[in-house]
Amino acid sequence: MRRFFLSQAKTCLDQSRRQHHKTRRVLSLLPSLSSPVPVPVSPLSRFLSSTSEMSGSDSTSSLPVTLDSINPKVLKCEYAVRGEIVNIAQKLQEDLKTNKDAYPFDEIIYCNIGNPQSLGQLPIKFFREVLALCDHTSLLDESETHGLFSTDSIDRAWKILDQIPGRATGAYSHSQGIKGLRDTIAAGIEARDGFPADPNDIFLTDGASPAVHMMMQLLISSEKDGILCPIPQYPLYSASIALHGGSLVPYYLDEATGWGLEISDLKKQLDEARAKGITVRALVVINPGNPTGQVLAEENQRDIAKFCKEEGLVLLADEVYQENVYVPDKKFHSFKKVARSLGYGEKDIALVSFQSVSKGYYGECGKRGGYMEVTGFTSDVREQIYKMASVNLCSNISGQILASLVMSPPKPGDETYDSYIAERDGILSSMAKRAKTLEDALNNLEGVTCNRAEGAMYLFPRINLPQKAIEAAEAAKTAPDAFYCKRLLNATGVVVVPGSGFGQVPGTWHFRCTILPQEDKIPAIVNRLTEFHKSFMDEFRD
Amino acid sequence: MRRFFLSQAKTCLDQSRRQHHKTRRVLSLLPSLSSPVPVPVSPLSRFLSSTSEMSGSDSTSSLPVTLDSINPKVLKCEYAVRGEIVNIAQKLQEDLKTNKDAYPFDEIIYCNIGNPQSLGQLPIKFFREVLALCDHTSLLDESETHGLFSTDSIDRAWKILDQIPGRATGAYSHSQGIKGLRDTIAAGIEARDGFPADPNDIFLTDGASPAVHMMMQLLISSEKDGILCPIPQYPLYSASIALHGGSLVPYYLDEATGWGLEISDLKKQLDEARAKGITVRALVVINPGNPTGQVLAEENQRDIAKFCKEEGLVLLADEVYQENVYVPDKKFHSFKKVARSLGYGEKDIALVSFQSVSKGYYGECGKRGGYMEVTGFTSDVREQIYKMASVNLCSNISGQILASLVMSPPKPGDETYDSYIAERDGILSSMAKRAKTLEDALNNLEGVTCNRAEGAMYLFPRINLPQKAIEAAEAAKTAPDAFYCKRLLNATGVVVVPGSGFGQVPGTWHFRCTILPQEDKIPAIVNRLTEFHKSFMDEFRD
Repeated sequence: MRRFFLSQAKTCLDQSRRQHHKTRRVLSLLPSLSSPVPVPVSPLSRFLSSTSEMSGSDSTSSLPVTLDSINPKVLKCEYAVRGEIVNIAQKLQEDLKTNKDAYPFDEIIYCNIGNPQSLGQLPIKFFREVLALCDHTSLLDESETHGLFSTDSIDRAWKILDQIPGRATGAYSHSQGIKGLRDTIAAGIEARDGFPADPNDIFLTDGASPAVHMMMQLLISSEKDGILCPIPQYPLYSASIALHGGSLVPYYLDEATGWGLEISDLKKQLDEARAKGITVRALVVINPGNPTGQVLAEENQRDIAKFCKEEGLVLLADEVYQENVYVPDKKFHSFKKVARSLGYGEKDIALVSFQSVSKGYYGECGKRGGYMEVTGFTSDVREQIYKMASVNLCSNISGQILASLVMSPPKPGDETYDSYIAERDGILSSMAKRAKTLEDALNNLEGVTCNRAEGAMYLFPRINLPQKAIEAAEAAKTAPDAFYCKRLLNATGVVVVPGSGFGQVPGTWHFRCTILPQEDKIPAIVNRLTEFHKSFMDEFRD
Repeated sequence: MRRFFLSQAKTCLDQSRRQHHKTRRVLSLLPSLSSPVPVPVSPLSRFLSSTSEMSGSDSTSSLPVTLDSINPKVLKCEYAVRGEIVNIAQKLQEDLKTNKDAYPFDEIIYCNIGNPQSLGQLPIKFFREVLALCDHTSLLDESETHGLFSTDSIDRAWKILDQIPGRATGAYSHSQGIKGLRDTIAAGIEARDGFPADPNDIFLTDGASPAVHMMMQLLISSEKDGILCPIPQYPLYSASIALHGGSLVPYYLDEATGWGLEISDLKKQLDEARAKGITVRALVVINPGNPTGQVLAEENQRDIAKFCKEEGLVLLADEVYQENVYVPDKKFHSFKKVARSLGYGEKDIALVSFQSVSKGYYGECGKRGGYMEVTGFTSDVREQIYKMASVNLCSNISGQILASLVMSPPKPGDETYDSYIAERDGILSSMAKRAKTLEDALNNLEGVTCNRAEGAMYLFPRINLPQKAIEAAEAAKTAPDAFYCKRLLNATGVVVVPGSGFGQVPGTWHFRCTILPQEDKIPAIVNRLTEFHKSFMDEFRD
């Protein structure tokens, strides 16, 4: 164990006081390797090298672009959710096709990413009907269509087409998204929160990721600009902060209290960063939590909103799991609702809420739909955000339509209402069941503790690794949790992400595992995991 | 006339030698205003201010984000295609709904942007059939579907679904895009060029814009990194270079020779930039040209490829208008084909080709599909590009599917082949006709000269403005071409973009006008334009 997250984060903060440097040394915020080698040769690089004519860094070619000459911010950026272990898994999957007998499993199960439909979850029928009708609008003129599509999907498609200038679903829209769809989304937010929402505050985006990048690009000028992020965090944030050259200011979630968020810790980290000359510009809160699965209590949210107001921080609220709450004692409250309930208006708090069509019960990851609701910014700053959106013209229209549908699903009385509710509740109750089964199984493993999955799509168990395993990982130049996850993959075909990809308290080890494999696969996963863990412990127990 | 593009570009180059500064002064690369006021209050800001509670910069609110505190690179970025004049147009359009009699026109005609379907162009039926079937896959199991869809669209949908793991069109794909679709695209490139293409070189993106940003992010570390761009250029490039903090190194296209590209000018600009301490990393070539509409001769392309190889520049080839060539004496050749014809392989030239589903005869702007073909990069740099793509997970699947369709449309013998060809040729020949009509009309105007629209979707006429008009523009604190374009909008409802948004030789004035209004609208546009121009000249003629 040599270089861990806390020291990394501190190094990063310290460095911000120094001159920007361009050496090849990579100071990764979230290293998955303890080796000082800057950019590890991953299986992907081997894979790419195998293609015809491709030249490696060691070649004698005179190509103009080298690792030394590219933007060092790109080198610094890490994204473990699709990192080294996933690359190994993809290679294994390829090899499995021809070499089935070589492995103790017959398929790779991707628990590394919240991608429900890749694991067999079916799309919500109503949503897909509307999308198909909007894609191929001449279907609406055919009588056979009534036999193939529900009445309310036809009605909704017409309503949406009427909101699109010239009914042109193939045209660039307004840079913020089609106005009529933003009206629908604003109405959905109002219905959810009980407070007004303005369609002019909505920016539709290709999933939530580009919206997060846009805000980071706006707020970060240099490494003197800091963003408070939870640790553990979803690595989009660390990646985006690294790409935009800012400083990630960490605050720790407390595992012992179910990943609790203490305002006193926030304040301490803020003050420390300020003392180092960092201007902290925003606070990222992920609720329900990713990778940690907790759902914030409303009172805690009120304290967070007050803190942001008092300290002059933009509150970046990642609320993409707002529909994913699995326990009866917790409920999702949007930060906008919480702030408005405190009496905070447009002039009191700058708040950005991110939402996505990729999560919830719909899980439409491939559609890349999402939005951010931007409140509490002056009109001149808003104009700059509009300009940034304009440079990319608009987000994809199917994603825009889907974002309006998830914020305005079928209502009682609609033809598809009952079947829609059955689909939705079936998916959500199954997710809750799967979360509980996996949580229990993990808690039954020797040296493993796992907090309750109150929401989101993940479990983030802590593994107390024996010293011998830690030493074996060191010898293999791998972080101990990555060592464990690679062993797990090779033994079971189950892909999870090491905790070091999300950040964790130094000396603790975790992994993130989604709850998304279909129910009939869960018993086998539990068995394989249990067996693997037992043999791992047998091998390394101190 | 005070501050024009050339001096701006020089200022920009000079500045790169100085320290990065954070004052509020905005050094716009492509200013549309000669006023020193940094960020003009546009009609949009007035529009936004009118929404409830919104606070302007002059308010006394204590909101944390101000123009002074945001990333100055964002302030610096300009994107005229959706800039001030479009904002005025949107306001007029809104006002027209209730106030029809107040204007001498009854609709706004958007000739500011290459957005064909917004002006009535119909989508290609086969493409939309396939998309609808892939969106709502259970249609494929219904017998009625055969009455509603062509046999080859059903076959193609099955083929595509079989290429998607689990047939899950709602899942995140591989970060570069679905492998089977990349196979199809690579085959399409091979068929087009007669040289091999590797599916592992393809990165599918949400339109071409994010691909351009990705390359700029990779190549630009600071203002010491320069990108050679044509002037006039499509302002995505200047915007992206500004956002990533690099230096735009201009090279001028020669209007007198039909927007010719002289290698000697390239060399001169390169040497000048280098003498100023700029490391020039890439050359952007837009072919067919945007906004200038020229199609490069193959010999010229060979010289460009040689130049890039010799000078160690990445060739960023914007080839999104590859299907849009309207004159029999010109033909599109991809830079990859040209480079390979010269015998240049992977180790000789770094070349990125951008393609989009938004242009061509298909014009599917709202689908946000596109790709870049990345060749001549070492495997370790490629891994960094892959990582950047991974942070955003993947591009939207409908856009990916469409990108495969445009690179592999129906073939002879397919059920829809004849109707597809009729649609395609109808659109392209009509575009050619519209281009010629508008070009002739513009050349008939007093003091206006317009080069031939050989390709792309634009005309970029030069307007020789009378001194009195230039003085009136100065008095109105507006660039003379913006002054002309605003007058044109107010008199006719036709929206065009001032040449200052693209860059132009100092002291010359232009505007960009698309050729996209449907044929039945062209005579009226010609009449209105002719009438307006006459009265403008009558008012200001020296």
